[in-house]
This record gives sequence, structure tokens and C-alpha cells, in this order.
Amino acid sequence: MTTPTPGRVWAHVGQPFAPDAPYDVLILGAGRMGSALALALHDHAPSLRTLLVEEGGLPNEDGATILAPGLWTLAHLPDAQHDAARWTLNRLRDLLGDDLQARPYLNLHDRPTPGTQPTRDLLATHPQSLALLDPDLLPHAEAHEAHLYRPGTLAQTAAQTAIRRGTDLMLNTRATPHPGGRVTLERLTVTNTHQIVTHETHTLHAPLVVLATGASAPAQAEHHLGLHTRHARAYRQTPHLDAPSTPDAPVLHARGLTLRPQHGAYTLIPTIHHRDPHGYTPQGGHLTGVPTGLRRETLEDLVGLMDAVPALATSELHLGRSLADIPGAWLALPHGQPDAPPTHQRLDDHTHLLLGGPHADTLGLWTADALAREIAGGSRQ
Amino acid sequence: MTTPTPGRVWAHVGQPFAPDAPYDVLILGAGRMGSALALALHDHAPSLRTLLVEEGGLPNEDGATILAPGLWTLAHLPDAQHDAARWTLNRLRDLLGDDLQARPYLNLHDRPTPGTQPTRDLLATHPQSLALLDPDLLPHAEAHEAHLYRPGTLAQTAAQTAIRRGTDLMLNTRATPHPGGRVTLERLTVTNTHQIVTHETHTLHAPLVVLATGASAPAQAEHHLGLHTRHARAYRQTPHLDAPSTPDAPVLHARGLTLRPQHGAYTLIPTIHHRDPHGYTPQGGHLTGVPTGLRRETLEDLVGLMDAVPALATSELHLGRSLADIPGAWLALPHGQPDAPPTHQRLDDHTHLLLGGPHADTLGLWTADALAREIAGGSRQ
Repeated sequence: MTTPTPGRVWAHVGQPFAPDAPYDVLILGAGRMGSALALALHDHAPSLRTLLVEEGGLPNEDGATILAPGLWTLAHLPDAQHDAARWTLNRLRDLLGDDLQARPYLNLHDRPTPGTQPTRDLLATHPQSLALLDPDLLPHAEAHEAHLYRPGTLAQTAAQTAIRRGTDLMLNTRATPHPGGRVTLERLTVTNTHQIVTHETHTLHAPLVVLATGASAPAQAEHHLGLHTRHARAYRQTPHLDAPSTPDAPVLHARGLTLRPQHGAYTLIPTIHHRDPHGYTPQGGHLTGVPTGLRRETLEDLVGLMDAVPALATSELHLGRSLADIPGAWLALPHGQPDAPPTHQRLDDHTHLLLGGPHADTLGLWTADALAREIAGGSRQ
Repeated sequence: MTTPTPGRVWAHVGQPFAPDAPYDVLILGAGRMGSALALALHDHAPSLRTLLVEEGGLPNEDGATILAPGLWTLAHLPDAQHDAARWTLNRLRDLLGDDLQARPYLNLHDRPTPGTQPTRDLLATHPQSLALLDPDLLPHAEAHEAHLYRPGTLAQTAAQTAIRRGTDLMLNTRATPHPGGRVTLERLTVTNTHQIVTHETHTLHAPLVVLATGASAPAQAEHHLGLHTRHARAYRQTPHLDAPSTPDAPVLHARGLTLRPQHGAYTLIPTIHHRDPHGYTPQGGHLTGVPTGLRRETLEDLVGLMDAVPALATSELHLGRSLADIPGAWLALPHGQPDAPPTHQRLDDHTHLLLGGPHADTLGLWTADALAREIAGGSRQ
């Protein structure tokens, strides 16, 4: 077995873009889905030459990857998806090693169901967790296996491993797909006055282009390729709850809200109820006349939980004053559905779409691998 | 039995506003819900003095009432709501007489279910209706009882009947509720340059104020009274399909879309899937690069139906070029749910909310009557 020649990385416009040979695959977007696909192609189709193109850095600080919860769990998945989730977990172990941490996950209920135990018993050794809740209103809980990780680290690890195996990477480059496998690349740079401008443009052709640009991918397919899809997006905010969490604190889930221990406190992951309409601009809300950075819909959900999770009714919850105060990102919704698993889809002779969405933490790597297998099958014909 | 003294009507600012005595009830909004409540109060609490205040005319051309389908049917209601719907139908008969027209209603399916018959058989005597569909894709249908009417006529009839029985009415008047049963009234007029301006303001106090301002009512409760609710709203467009319909053409329903015969053609009533987020501004979409007046979400639903309802894929469907080309209105969603029945709710010591929403055609009069009974019960204590 020979050591592969590592790929080339063009990080900034000072490095002249001069690929050695034409590419077989252009992957647009180096979030976790695009990065995982680049890596999976080395397993399934090692002879393909791949270029991974990313508009920002690695990881992109404006994308959904860096704000994703990084929470692997079977708690809300139908049985049919468990094998794919288990496969993803094994792959996460390979890629992340000790950066993947097992944690208990408690799904809290107001009524007993098969498999629940008393909340007070399950949290007996976690008094700080119990203090967040009203255990009289959420007296029952099921414990699930869960694993925490940082999706930004996953994207970075997958991309770097792919590069070591031969994938080329362009950062700070905006890619626009066109019909026929043509992609224009604009290499971006920042001026002295902090404006982002195009430094130079390139045009590439490739037999295969994969749109892995997250919530932007369906709009790209439609605007640039004229291909309509039913995929949609939603703007998810993940506010901070400044209540102390220990390194072994369980993940808590009640009525659609997930409390994810992070940085010694909690990140709140609200439910996505449905797509946001075309043309919606995220904006803050108001609580008793005071502006908040939280959007109205998220605020309503949290207010509705304040009885069961009294910590939400304290100043520990960061409401913010404007949208910029609350971490938030557009999330792809495959098929327009908030519960749909990640998906890939052939759009035309040259183009595939690869979407993560709300279940990318648990199923994303499997879907990226499935697309790599499909591409490998096609390239052998 | 004495003939009641009719109420007074202040239609424009040329008529000095000088009520004879204080009011017991102020109803804000003379859509069908507010008008129906005014009338129902004469049945249940005839001694109460009521003022009905409307920002526009009767009916208001910007409200949801005038664009509502005016379609009474049990087809999509749970059994528990059938009695209320039957009660509403009887009341519609009393108020509208011959303006209420019985029509067949066909719920079309791709698979047979109990109660379905072949679509071709049911539409054998309606070839124009059959021509809209692909009966191979929608081969099965259940027939339901349905009745058509004009909700604008209903609002007008209910308000006029209430006035004959003593309710006072102010038109072209913007009403703002304040805590403690205080309401400010701005009488509006139009200048030579077509601007709407406030001509004069009045302040009234009443023991009871009812917010019947449709999709605006929850925002009024929150902004002016500081009372949060979980009610929401959605912007519904009702595009025109220029396919011929006869005076006895059945109402057709397939995969969430209702085709309502109207003016010799059809009005399309799309499904409401969910609330629109706070801050959403309705806007048109694009179909293969061409701007449309139809919003993206509605367009997607119609495109998804073009196989089963080929008439939608013809120029008979009015897509419009901008939002103003397509009739549309904000619809209240009680409890934020697209399937919730009309509702009323006590907000504070002085204020009730009365919301119609998507099922107001079938259940609205019953809910207005229920609130009148509650008010009557309270006023007797």
C-alpha cells in the first residue's frame, strides 16, 4: 500500500489556484456533510479526484455545522433509522476518538410510559440537573444512550483526513453551480475597510457536482440550475442558559426542548415545528414590551416550559436584546419536514444534493457515505 | 312584545358621535365573528347596550371575512364538533335564506376508503368538473353535504339585524383597547390626496370589551393590554382558476386543496399547514424564473397537485405577477393550530377575545353564540 499524495489547500488569494488535473467531483460546502462526503469518496471511489470548496473557513462560522448541538441519540428516531444511526456512531468514534463523550440522556414526561423511572431517582446523583426542573411536573423519565461532540471539529477532522488522502480544498471561495457541470469560483478577500470582495474568478467543469451548502443548497439548485425541490429551511436559535453543568451532567429533554450541557452551562436546542416561509427574515421578539433577541416562536415555546423548567424563568436564560445576541443559523429541512432524516438526491446528470438538517448529528455520516457509494457505483459503470 | 328601537349608525365623520348612554359591551371588529356576537347578545342578554366598531366598512374589504370560502362542511371536522356545526348551519339558514346554497362536496382520494365511490360515477353528470381532474390518479371519492354562502353577506346581515334590534355601529373607526375597559376610538377619513387620517378621537369605558379583530386581535391584546396568548396567524391566498363551473358544480377537494365553484369559475382554497412566523411579510414567489403573485409555499402545493388536477398546469390558473394580483388575507389561527375550531377566551376582567380562523365558515356562529351565553351568564350575576 502506497502512502497517498496529500491534496492541496488554497486558503487565501495569495496562493495561485492551479490544479494539477481536472476534477471528477466538485463538492460545494465544507460543512460536516460535504467534508464527510469528501472523506467517504476515498473509501468507495479512491481514484476520483475531488475538490472541496468552502465559502468561509474550516469550519465556517456562519454555517449550521458550528451551531449544531452535536448530540447523537436514538431517543427521537423511528426504529428503521437505528442501524444508520449506529453506523454513524461507530464512524464518529473512529473520527473523533476521545472528543466523543458518552452522556446520559433523560427524556422527561408528565405521565409514566413504558420504560420510564422516577425523575428524582434518575437525577439523585445530579442535584444541579434536578434543580433546573420541577420534578412534580416532570416526574417520569426514560434514560437513553447519548454521545456529545462538536460538529465543527467533526467537519474539520473529516476534511483534514480527506486532504491527507488526496482531496483538494479551497477556502474563502464562493462557488456557483451552472447547468452542465460548470461551476464558477469566486475567491474572496477582505479589504482594508473590511469589505468582502471577489479577488479573482475561475470556471471549472466536472462530471459531478455535489451541493452540500446546507440550507442554501435548495435555493442554489433553483436559482442557478432551474431545478425545483420541496426542501425548505428553518432558522434555529440556540440560546444559552447560564445554569451550572458538571462534566457528567445528563442531557435533558422536555416537551421538545433539549438542554445540552456545554462549557459548564447549557445550550438550549428548541424544537423545530415547521419550515419558515420563503422570504422570512429572522427577527427578535418582545417579552412584556422588552425587545428580545429570541424570535417570537422560540420565546413562546420557552415561556410555555417555564412551569416545568423553572430555570427558564430566571435571568440565567439569555434572552438578548437583538437577533445578533443569540446564536442562530438556518437549518435545511429535507423534504420541507422538520423530522426528516438527512438525504441525498440526484438533481440532474451532473448534480447531487446532500442535505443534513435536524438529524445530521445522528445520521449525517451515514447519508454522506450512502451518496459516496452511489457515486462510486456510477463511476464504475 | 314591543318593537325594539333600532340602534344608531355612525358611518362617516360628518355624523357627530354622541351616544345616548354608556355602553355595556364594546365589540371591536364587525367581521362575521363580531357581527354574529352583536346579534347573539340580543338573544341572550337583550338588556345590554352594545357598540360595534369597525375600522373599515361593512363588510371590511381588507379583512378575512370577505375572502373566506363560505363553505360549510363536516368533511374535515372531528365528530365532537358536528353538533356545533349543525347548529351553525341552522343559524346560517335563518340569516341567509336562499343565499345559502346546498352543493355536493367530493373529497377525492388515490385509494379507496370506506364510503368512497368511483370518481367517474360521482361526476358522471358533471363533465366540466371531471375535466379538471385526472380520474386515474384520483379514482375514489366520498360525497359530503356542503353549503355555500358569502361570508361578507353573513357579516352584513348579522350586523344589520343586530342594529334593528338596538346595537349601535361605528364604521371607519379604529379602536384601540387599553387596560381597565378603556377603548380609544379614532374616526378615520380620507383626504383629497387619498390619505387616511384621524378626524377625531373619543375615549369610551365599558365593563366588557370583545376583541373580534381577527388575525390582529392577539397582537392587540399583547401590545395594548400586555396579555400574551399562543394564538397565531397565517397569510392565506385564494387564487382564481378560470375553468368554467355550472351553478350546480360540486365543490372538489384533493390533497388539501379545495376548488370552490364561484362566479362561474373556481376559487382555490389551499391548505394552511402552519402559522407564519412573527415578522413574516407576505410576498410572491418564482416559477422557473418568472415572478408570481402566489407565495412560494402555496405555489409548491399547487405544483405538487398538477398531476392529479391538470387544470392547475394550464393558463386557467392565475399566478399573478405580484402579491397584489392574488386575493389574500391574514387568518387567525386559534392556539396557533391550523386545525383548531373558532374560540373565545377571557383575557382579563374586562376583555374577551373572539377568534374565527380556518373553521369559521362551519363553526363560527356557534362560537359567537357561546360567548354571548357566557357574557349573559356573567351579566346576570
